[in-house]
Amino acid sequence: MNITQMSCPMPQLDFEVITLGHGSGGILTNKLLESGVFDLLKNPLLDQKHDGAIFRLDGQLAFSTDSYVISPIFFPNSNIGELAINGTVNDLSMCGAIPKYLSLSFIIEEGLTMKEFWEILVAIKFTAEKAGVQIVTGDTKVVERGKGDKIFINTSGIGVIHPKANINIKNVKTGDKIIISGHIATHGIAIMSVREGLEFETSIESDTQHLNFVIKELLDEFGNNIHLLRDPTRGGVATVLNEIARDAKLGCDIIQSQIPVLEEVEGACELLGLDPLYVANEGVFMAIVAAEVADNILKKLKSIPNFEHSACIGEVVAEHPKQVVLKSKIGGKRVVNMLVGEQLPRIC
Amino acid sequence: MNITQMSCPMPQLDFEVITLGHGSGGILTNKLLESGVFDLLKNPLLDQKHDGAIFRLDGQLAFSTDSYVISPIFFPNSNIGELAINGTVNDLSMCGAIPKYLSLSFIIEEGLTMKEFWEILVAIKFTAEKAGVQIVTGDTKVVERGKGDKIFINTSGIGVIHPKANINIKNVKTGDKIIISGHIATHGIAIMSVREGLEFETSIESDTQHLNFVIKELLDEFGNNIHLLRDPTRGGVATVLNEIARDAKLGCDIIQSQIPVLEEVEGACELLGLDPLYVANEGVFMAIVAAEVADNILKKLKSIPNFEHSACIGEVVAEHPKQVVLKSKIGGKRVVNMLVGEQLPRIC
Repeated sequence: MNITQMSCPMPQLDFEVITLGHGSGGILTNKLLESGVFDLLKNPLLDQKHDGAIFRLDGQLAFSTDSYVISPIFFPNSNIGELAINGTVNDLSMCGAIPKYLSLSFIIEEGLTMKEFWEILVAIKFTAEKAGVQIVTGDTKVVERGKGDKIFINTSGIGVIHPKANINIKNVKTGDKIIISGHIATHGIAIMSVREGLEFETSIESDTQHLNFVIKELLDEFGNNIHLLRDPTRGGVATVLNEIARDAKLGCDIIQSQIPVLEEVEGACELLGLDPLYVANEGVFMAIVAAEVADNILKKLKSIPNFEHSACIGEVVAEHPKQVVLKSKIGGKRVVNMLVGEQLPRIC
Repeated sequence: MNITQMSCPMPQLDFEVITLGHGSGGILTNKLLESGVFDLLKNPLLDQKHDGAIFRLDGQLAFSTDSYVISPIFFPNSNIGELAINGTVNDLSMCGAIPKYLSLSFIIEEGLTMKEFWEILVAIKFTAEKAGVQIVTGDTKVVERGKGDKIFINTSGIGVIHPKANINIKNVKTGDKIIISGHIATHGIAIMSVREGLEFETSIESDTQHLNFVIKELLDEFGNNIHLLRDPTRGGVATVLNEIARDAKLGCDIIQSQIPVLEEVEGACELLGLDPLYVANEGVFMAIVAAEVADNILKKLKSIPNFEHSACIGEVVAEHPKQVVLKSKIGGKRVVNMLVGEQLPRIC
């Protein structure tokens, strides 16, 4: 989403930066809560003024949590607020769930300006609305300068499992196709380009987006032919495939020429000495699907805006169990291992 | 709980401190996850290896979140791990819920030793078991030295509302009694004494404990005669009473001589220039209850271990709406305002 196009006028405040007192639980905390700042996120559940939110949800539930520590907190076209909503919405989606309710918890380093905080809140508001989820409970803590890094955000979320979903590593079997929903490595390179001050001919923007609607459409139509869903965030596509191979005790064969990567991202990866297979994504998912429906799934995906670049990149095989093997563009084969060490710290 | 008496042998590891790589999502993250360290928390839901946990819960649900940034992370008889479990269990309890499932998310500053992390995990394990809740999903992030402070923990939780509970600020009415479940200000003073290097004749320990079982017993017996529950953490008893008075648009009268405070805590408060009414608690709750059952609730509470010092400290009145008035030990009356600024930063 082009977060920078979303704006809301900030309420008039008599303070410009967040201080330790805003995390005290006392009058300054209440002043912050009542300043109009949090009115952005208003909804009946959040307004219950309990220590938590109360609601009813029927069916199988999914519950997920993630803390976001990305640096810098503002990056091309987006910020940590959008990432924190999309990330947890996507984790729930990967369970086969329809995300419903999110919690939102801030750990702020004193000195964060209200302008920065407001921008992040605006991104949170619009992203949650766009993804159709409600923020129903929250928490704000403040730590001293030098004991945090501007802002960390935790979002946890609850969703209802889609009635047709049966997402389970145990369903992955030989012959299953491996589908990726778009260009890989874009998020990681967008962040690196800001950090390293790189300039490319076209600006590379994070791919962060919520995946819940597209996943719902796929589950509506293809149900339990979708065996597994994963979003390749930290550690990238290579790490997710290694985890799948390890847990399914099967092999994964992938074909380099089939893997969609934006030309400028590929160029940046070469410049930075990074393999796009290990670079983080925030708006892409991988699906392991029954071979007989793979073409139809791909056709469907390609018809949905933002997923036109979906591709089948390989398949699950009985050979070389627990290993991922890449057929390179020049025809050779090599084993793709899990990411060793830390390639891009604090990418999400 | 005496956390220091709980111990588990730490698995043999070939690393002694946590580094950025342990948060990469790659091989080091997997090494940490599979080192046996997280086996401590094993349970069938956590082991699903989804991006989230999947389960069924019927009835009205409560959902709550809190990030714990307490400093120091180890304090007399307890640590941040125990606090993070009890805190969210208690927030759910204050909604009138039976806590069931917790998420657990770490933001670790690189350099935290595995020994420290292990001690915290052991506290988490035993506290969750004791409180009867399961940790079902989690996340671990690592930030650079100087960008965090050893460890921050977020726990979010889901519980099922007790069928007899009807906790709502709208139920608070004139004549209701204000009950407190034990000595106040103990947690805050325990932390301050460590920070300031104070020594008292007897060591002051944090009061952190889970309140879910006692709340369940009260709800079983007194149901909707319990109008409101709150745990006076940050900002203390004074802040909670001010919030109640403000939101109920009624007054609160409290009697200083009725408020239970340990003698050594009172002494420390005098020494440090703190008013115990503003000091944080982690194992105490306040209940606003119908006058006709107040005596029975108090009798019941006093019969339960750890709640023998419960007391009725005042009542809700029609006079001075939105104000809290204290009748002091020497007979005078004064308005008790909400905490201004930050008295004790990072107390939870």
